[in-house]
Parts: sequence; C-alpha cells; structure tokens
Amino acid sequence: MPTVQGVKPRTRRSRLTPERESELYEAVVELLREVGYAALTMDAIAARTRSSKATLYRQWESKPQLVATALRHTKPVPLENIDTGSLRGDLREVVICGSDRTEQDAALMRGLAHATHEYPDLSQALRELLIAPEVAALDALLKRAVDRGEIAADAPALGYVPHMLCGAFVARPLIDDRTADADYLLTYIDAVILPALGA
Amino acid sequence: MPTVQGVKPRTRRSRLTPERESELYEAVVELLREVGYAALTMDAIAARTRSSKATLYRQWESKPQLVATALRHTKPVPLENIDTGSLRGDLREVVICGSDRTEQDAALMRGLAHATHEYPDLSQALRELLIAPEVAALDALLKRAVDRGEIAADAPALGYVPHMLCGAFVARPLIDDRTADADYLLTYIDAVILPALGA
Repeated sequence: MPTVQGVKPRTRRSRLTPERESELYEAVVELLREVGYAALTMDAIAARTRSSKATLYRQWESKPQLVATALRHTKPVPLENIDTGSLRGDLREVVICGSDRTEQDAALMRGLAHATHEYPDLSQALRELLIAPEVAALDALLKRAVDRGEIAADAPALGYVPHMLCGAFVARPLIDDRTADADYLLTYIDAVILPALGA
Repeated sequence: MPTVQGVKPRTRRSRLTPERESELYEAVVELLREVGYAALTMDAIAARTRSSKATLYRQWESKPQLVATALRHTKPVPLENIDTGSLRGDLREVVICGSDRTEQDAALMRGLAHATHEYPDLSQALRELLIAPEVAALDALLKRAVDRGEIAADAPALGYVPHMLCGAFVARPLIDDRTADADYLLTYIDAVILPALGA
C-alpha cells in the first residue's frame, strides 16, 4: 500500500469509534463464517462494512491481521478481565468462557486452523494477535497465584498451562467423541491442571 | 456389499499373508498422501495394490475402515509393545515414537482430521480402529504403573493421560510455532504428566 506510507496509524485508528470498530469486527467474523478464509476478500469486507478498502488496509494492514484482530475482539470475555481472587476460580472462569462456544464457532476455528497450513501469514497473525495475548493473560493470572502463594514460582508445569488447556479442548472430541463442555473442563482443572501445578 | 454376505471374514482374512497385508497398508497410506481422503477411491486402491475391489470390501468392509486399519498398521512402534519397567520410561518411549513423525506424516494427519468433519464414518473408523486401541494400550501401561505402586489407583488424572499427550502435540505448533520434538515432549512428561499423576 504505497499510498498510505507515512500515515500515522494511531491518528487514523482514532477516527473509528469503538462502536464502529466492534461493528466492523462482527461483520468480518460473519463473512468468515459464510465464505471461509480462502474466499474472504478485502473487497467483500469493504462492501459489507461500507468502508473503503484503503481504510481497511490503513487500519489493519492485511487480511490476516484484520481477521485475527476481529476474532480477538469478538470473544465474549477477554481473559485479562478474569480475576476471581483464587487460581481455581480463575481457571474455572477461563474454561467456562471457552466452553460456551457453539458448534458454529468450533467449525470456524477448525476452518482457520486448516487454513493456517496454506497461509503462513494467517498463521503468524493468529499467533501474534490472538494466541499471544491469551497466553500473556494466562501468564498474568498464574503470576497472581504465585504471588498469593498458591503455587511455587518454579513449578515446572507453569509454562504448560496453555498446552494442557488446549489438550482438553482438542482431545475431548477426538478421543471421547464428545464436545469439551463446561462439566468436563471443570473436572479437568481439578484432575489435571491443579495437581500438575502442585496447587 | 450383498454378494459377500455370509462369508466368514476370519477365513477370508487368513488368505492374505502378513507380508501382503503390510504391502497393502503401505500402498493405502501412500495413495492417501498423494490424493487425500476425499479423492481416494477403492478403485484406485485396488489398481495400486493389484487386488480386486471385492477382496478389499470383503476384508475391510469400507474405505474409512481400510484407511484407519492401514494407518494403525503402518505406525513404527505399536504402543502395546512398550514395557520398560517404569512409568517414566514407558511414557518416554511413547512420545519418542510419536515425535519422529515427519512433516509429511503431520500433514497427512491434519488432512484426515479435517476430513472427519465431512465424513462421520471416517471419524468413527479412526476412533474405533486407530484411537481406541492406542488409548487402551496407554491404559494398560498406566495400570502396570498402578500395580507397581508408582501411582495411586484413584489418581484423578489417570483418565486424562491421552488428553495431556494430545495437548502437547497439538499446542506446541499452535502456541510456540515449533514442532513437538522429542526434547520438548520429554520435558512435558516431567513437568506436566508425572506431577499431574502424583508420580
């Protein structure tokens, strides 16, 4: 986008109201569900959101970055807002937020996971703009538990909580042919995650 | 296949030598890599393996069952052969066998995982003929550890070892953008799985 070189992104970004931004993210996710990542075009997003393509590129730089940002901002509860005062309480909130995903959401994420192998820039955008902030929020939540004395600062499992959680979500349908519902995930916290952390 | 009704599968199956069966499974996996599950036909398998389609259906009943059986039999080391005498030793063997998968293997499994959402009969065949035997072998391995007194018979994490392992394999590329290599998996056993089991 040579025409937007030199434009300060922050200044431009501030022109969209938060409401308008939310609206736009919802529309991107809606389109993504309808046509899938490969067939999604910036033209279609511009048309659906009544924006100019120049605006989209100025604010989000690329399709994968816009998609990853839209997914992050349309999540029901951001992990960084969770702070119940106990590790168990926090982890329970984390999985309850994750488990109310509909089959439609799950299909969307499966489609995206598949697309990452064809589109390395999507893979990078999802990791940087969607997964890394979630992992950072989980780390902050675990650090609070360490500070409260609930887990040892050098517990070897500390770096693997995202992996354990990810396993719970992915393995349940694969191994048990059932969705990772709230009951299962809450049991998994008590049976696996807290014991692994020595909590 | 009405023409094969009443034929005793055991009798028929015994007509193939183990060498011929292995050859056939290798050819099925090779074809699967070349064309993917959706485009794989029993005709192509029959042609490649110089078998009749009637033989294939008689022995394996359906394409998904043949594919799942072929995948199971082309694994380098069956989990049920692992018995090192200690839980840690056994789990290390399990992940070492899993971690020498090539990127080609990983792509094959990703393709299949994707196909399961379109083909419920594939999903069922993989679960029954590939995943369930592996889970049973893991259970037997854990039962030996319980019998040796290495873990408590009522350790809550006992039923979730496949889920923890699955998480390690899936989360590593997703979260860390790296393959689940042997070093990482061996660390994961010591940091997560053994502590979760209270071993």
